[in-house]
Amino acid sequence: MSPEAPGTLAAVGQFGLIAEIRRILAAPDGPAGPAPGGAPPRGHVVLGPGDDCAVVATEPNHELLLTTDAQHEGVHFDLRWMAVRQAGRRAMAAALSDIAAMAGRPRAALVALAFPADTTVEAALDLVRGAAEVGEVHGCPIVGGNVVRSPGGISITTSIVGQVRRGKAVRRSGARPGDEVWVTGEPGAALAGLLALKAGLGADPQAAPFVRRFLEPTPRIAEAELLAEKGQLHALMDVSDGLAGDLARICEESGVGVRLNRERIPVSPALRALAPRLGAGDPVDLVLRGGEDFELLVVAPAGRIPTVKGEIEGVFGVKMWRIGDVRPEAGITIQDPGSMAFPLEVRSFDHFAS
Amino acid sequence: MSPEAPGTLAAVGQFGLIAEIRRILAAPDGPAGPAPGGAPPRGHVVLGPGDDCAVVATEPNHELLLTTDAQHEGVHFDLRWMAVRQAGRRAMAAALSDIAAMAGRPRAALVALAFPADTTVEAALDLVRGAAEVGEVHGCPIVGGNVVRSPGGISITTSIVGQVRRGKAVRRSGARPGDEVWVTGEPGAALAGLLALKAGLGADPQAAPFVRRFLEPTPRIAEAELLAEKGQLHALMDVSDGLAGDLARICEESGVGVRLNRERIPVSPALRALAPRLGAGDPVDLVLRGGEDFELLVVAPAGRIPTVKGEIEGVFGVKMWRIGDVRPEAGITIQDPGSMAFPLEVRSFDHFAS
Repeated sequence: MSPEAPGTLAAVGQFGLIAEIRRILAAPDGPAGPAPGGAPPRGHVVLGPGDDCAVVATEPNHELLLTTDAQHEGVHFDLRWMAVRQAGRRAMAAALSDIAAMAGRPRAALVALAFPADTTVEAALDLVRGAAEVGEVHGCPIVGGNVVRSPGGISITTSIVGQVRRGKAVRRSGARPGDEVWVTGEPGAALAGLLALKAGLGADPQAAPFVRRFLEPTPRIAEAELLAEKGQLHALMDVSDGLAGDLARICEESGVGVRLNRERIPVSPALRALAPRLGAGDPVDLVLRGGEDFELLVVAPAGRIPTVKGEIEGVFGVKMWRIGDVRPEAGITIQDPGSMAFPLEVRSFDHFAS
Repeated sequence: MSPEAPGTLAAVGQFGLIAEIRRILAAPDGPAGPAPGGAPPRGHVVLGPGDDCAVVATEPNHELLLTTDAQHEGVHFDLRWMAVRQAGRRAMAAALSDIAAMAGRPRAALVALAFPADTTVEAALDLVRGAAEVGEVHGCPIVGGNVVRSPGGISITTSIVGQVRRGKAVRRSGARPGDEVWVTGEPGAALAGLLALKAGLGADPQAAPFVRRFLEPTPRIAEAELLAEKGQLHALMDVSDGLAGDLARICEESGVGVRLNRERIPVSPALRALAPRLGAGDPVDLVLRGGEDFELLVVAPAGRIPTVKGEIEGVFGVKMWRIGDVRPEAGITIQDPGSMAFPLEVRSFDHFAS
């Protein structure tokens, strides 16, 4: 075991660290000060960290949404490219995004943390601060957790309990032929940011907005709720493993296919300008391959999204793009202007593939 | 990356493994066949694994209990001493035990799994089978999860959502002077089993029952529920980090102390006979130090537990022992027969301590 260097977890011990974490999580305004738009609701938290379980109140006529997401140093995040606090923010954002993907509202989070013994206390607390501040913004306080020594690097596993009105969770399986396929915001931006970091462009002004989208993604919680309320959604998913790969899962679960329209895949002028510097080839492919954007893939009956799209843009500043249509034939094809539709090769990131 | 040896996760990939796991979890009678006492309730699971979140129904007039627990190979379990399936069983038991420790009923579990790429598919599935079969026995199906590549060994993080009648969760903080302190079953048995394994006595008939208690612990879910219903409990906790250390936490949270009675610390004849072979010194110390038993530490007003103790023993075959009394003065003391009470040195296992 390493020597107990001052300021390390080996020096303060597990229970010393837990006491510090409890202090952070108990701050009345949350770790980042008052949340924008006023303090998030906390009244449903009957008992926070410190006992065997947290206790959280439920609301009548709702169902629970449950999801868990693990992020390991060296697999999901690289501390050469991001601060520990950003790793915490991304972990919470990724888990919250699964709640958005069912059109639910997050209520409470649990974090299971693993640290090597030579981690500094400040680094450990920064991971918690990052996760907690993103949770707070979305009304999802961290109510409990677990701290252990890691035999490898740092890891954080975030589990979220959300809620949705009974029967109103939007699944992946409801897409029907004739539906429209829409996507929010700037898909591909996070991948462009990651490629920029790998290319040594972390401090480049042209790359900066993309790097930021990679390092500090925003789960589309409120957008999904509004879309589900007004858009009669048939299927919903967040883009985590790659736009085309995630769309392929909607197709499989729904027993349908999708024809994408290449002209309608959103490529911003900024992305078009940056792409050649990333060695990423056609920026349309970058958008289709990109994951970890936490944009929403939205499937709705023809004509529904145009009725709510303006409100989404007005309230949240988030654009929406109609990228394709649901077809009865399985598989994803892509239609070039003035050409036939060709099958799209879909690859998702596979953790175990060589 | 290692070559894709047949039967490894590198060969089948993340999505191949997830498909196999979904098959295991979808088995109508659970992975171990019908549960004893009939099929566990599953009707509250509206949507199981496969979408962005699981969907679970709530019951009126209840609150949620939330807990998470991580187990890492090389830190929490050692595959030289246990099968992967046992590691899965222990992980689920440990997490369920936190629900017992609030006198709640588990409803649904999430498992976040991390495996090195050269793990065999069978080993990965065995981890899930072990966790799932213990969950099923206690009415707690695995409804979702996450699979990633681990940069180190295998790990499993189990998060549980339970429920308890509104206001009825039993916390650590309610112990009052004059209360009695009780413990269930055979505290120290799991530690004796671990020491036997370390001493090479894994196959020894005298050690076998203790080894089994270490490898296959039982969370006291139903016992805790009955105790809380009839025992007017003031405080409750499961023994996970060590009996004395866990009792110290009840004292801290309640602002009280405890005087233990050395004569009443339960040491079975079998443990007394085995202890010298373990090099463990006084078997009473072994009981006080022992963790991972998942026995219950119970604090109740004087005279209450004797009214329910017989039923606990009759229904569950679990004995109860009155080991001490709550006192106003902070700290834990231990009283030898015919002697003064001495302060007890309390040490919990600290993950980061050298």
